[in-house]
Amino acid sequence: MTVRRPVLRLRLGQADGADQRPHRVQRPDSLAVEEPLELRVGGQPLSVTMRTPGNDVELAHGFLLTEGAVARRDEVRTVRYCHSHDDGGRNTYNVLDIELAAGVAPPAGRAFLTTAACGVCGKAALDDVRLRSRYEPASDACQVDAAVLARLPARLRAAQRVFDSTGGLHAAGLFTTGGEQLWVREDVGRHNAVDKVLGAALLADALPAAGTVLMVSGRASFELTQKAAMAGVPVLAAVSAPSSLAAELAEELGITLVGFLRGDSMNVYTRADRITG
Amino acid sequence: MTVRRPVLRLRLGQADGADQRPHRVQRPDSLAVEEPLELRVGGQPLSVTMRTPGNDVELAHGFLLTEGAVARRDEVRTVRYCHSHDDGGRNTYNVLDIELAAGVAPPAGRAFLTTAACGVCGKAALDDVRLRSRYEPASDACQVDAAVLARLPARLRAAQRVFDSTGGLHAAGLFTTGGEQLWVREDVGRHNAVDKVLGAALLADALPAAGTVLMVSGRASFELTQKAAMAGVPVLAAVSAPSSLAAELAEELGITLVGFLRGDSMNVYTRADRITG
Repeated sequence: MTVRRPVLRLRLGQADGADQRPHRVQRPDSLAVEEPLELRVGGQPLSVTMRTPGNDVELAHGFLLTEGAVARRDEVRTVRYCHSHDDGGRNTYNVLDIELAAGVAPPAGRAFLTTAACGVCGKAALDDVRLRSRYEPASDACQVDAAVLARLPARLRAAQRVFDSTGGLHAAGLFTTGGEQLWVREDVGRHNAVDKVLGAALLADALPAAGTVLMVSGRASFELTQKAAMAGVPVLAAVSAPSSLAAELAEELGITLVGFLRGDSMNVYTRADRITG
Repeated sequence: MTVRRPVLRLRLGQADGADQRPHRVQRPDSLAVEEPLELRVGGQPLSVTMRTPGNDVELAHGFLLTEGAVARRDEVRTVRYCHSHDDGGRNTYNVLDIELAAGVAPPAGRAFLTTAACGVCGKAALDDVRLRSRYEPASDACQVDAAVLARLPARLRAAQRVFDSTGGLHAAGLFTTGGEQLWVREDVGRHNAVDKVLGAALLADALPAAGTVLMVSGRASFELTQKAAMAGVPVLAAVSAPSSLAAELAEELGITLVGFLRGDSMNVYTRADRITG
């Protein structure tokens, strides 16, 4: 998940020092790997995402889940690497062929299928990006102790194997409300990290993800809130800020949205009734 | 660009304190606004992006530029809000109608048009996400002093009007190599912030953006490096880490890539010959 590259490390000279020129050191540096992953359904191209290689089958399942195509493991027949190769004849492992179960339709390219009915097109644009989940996080009666939540950022960071060497990866983790770690995944893309985690849950037949907390290393957007809903996750917690639409969607869907989860404090934007302690 | 919402601020009790229960305060909080923007070309839906409202026309121009459809202002005839309205009859200002100049084709939906030639599909996936720029940042002979670069993160932050109140916005800024600020824009989406800045440059007939530094508040990905290339930007600087593919693409296109630009130090991954001092 990392590659080494030469890098010029440059540090400015001290104003009170004798030498005003920047200090230059050439050394190798670890970078988080980013490569394209093409998903195909029945041989037809579905999407290309820039991702960190690893857990690709989980990513494919998570993508299908959070785009509304499937909600259970048995709705996906097979996911396997295509025999793709680069100019040197090596398999790139950058194309996955997906076969869905009979009667399951691939996800529609949401952003490209907006209705052209202009009179309501503002609403249509929003409706178009909204998906209907088969699960109902609103009715999840779980509770989570504030002290458990406060420990999750450190747990997430501790489980990140690659971040320390590159500083370049987002993380997402699914935890029980008791604080037990279920899955933690890393990726250059924050959406991908979440899709990998939720794909792992789907592959483990663990959906809906009742009584869980989805913890993300960055911000909480509309898309991440929607992904939580698609997997039936009742609590979404983020280290950084939520957006307005994340809070609106969380309220509408009955998801507990926690932001600025840092140190010993947090902001609870919706469904605070689930937070105890 | 912000909305107010009630939030429950929760702080854990001190272990040595008399009261072990978390301290709870209900107060209003400012959130960065996130809303969908649908772009249409000639009445046909092109894409929906989740963005922070504001500078939408710049965003539309920047999107067309960085998706390879246009490279000059006169290739876009008009960009105007559609008469879209919500259930209450208010214009949502969330749909933009674009008319391109005669002979200019809208961008192809890259991720959905991958060739089905499986033998080379790994390469095809990557080729599919790569765009050809009409500008050549490699031949830009500009130089930038390391001390100027070191000041840019603070300049970017100072220009961010909304971040301080929400903590929820990415920023991108275009500066001259002398450190003069040209445009700074904010958005919940990091790609959108960059598209707004580059769209502003296009609208000012300032492309190719020779002799400039594109400074971004987060990480440097493949996509952001490509966006810089599409506008002819010779130097891309990021506060955080670059990905492997960002460095590879920067090397191939002759763009100077700077990462971890913090305090008085930075990492230069490619084309360090442009860095002086």
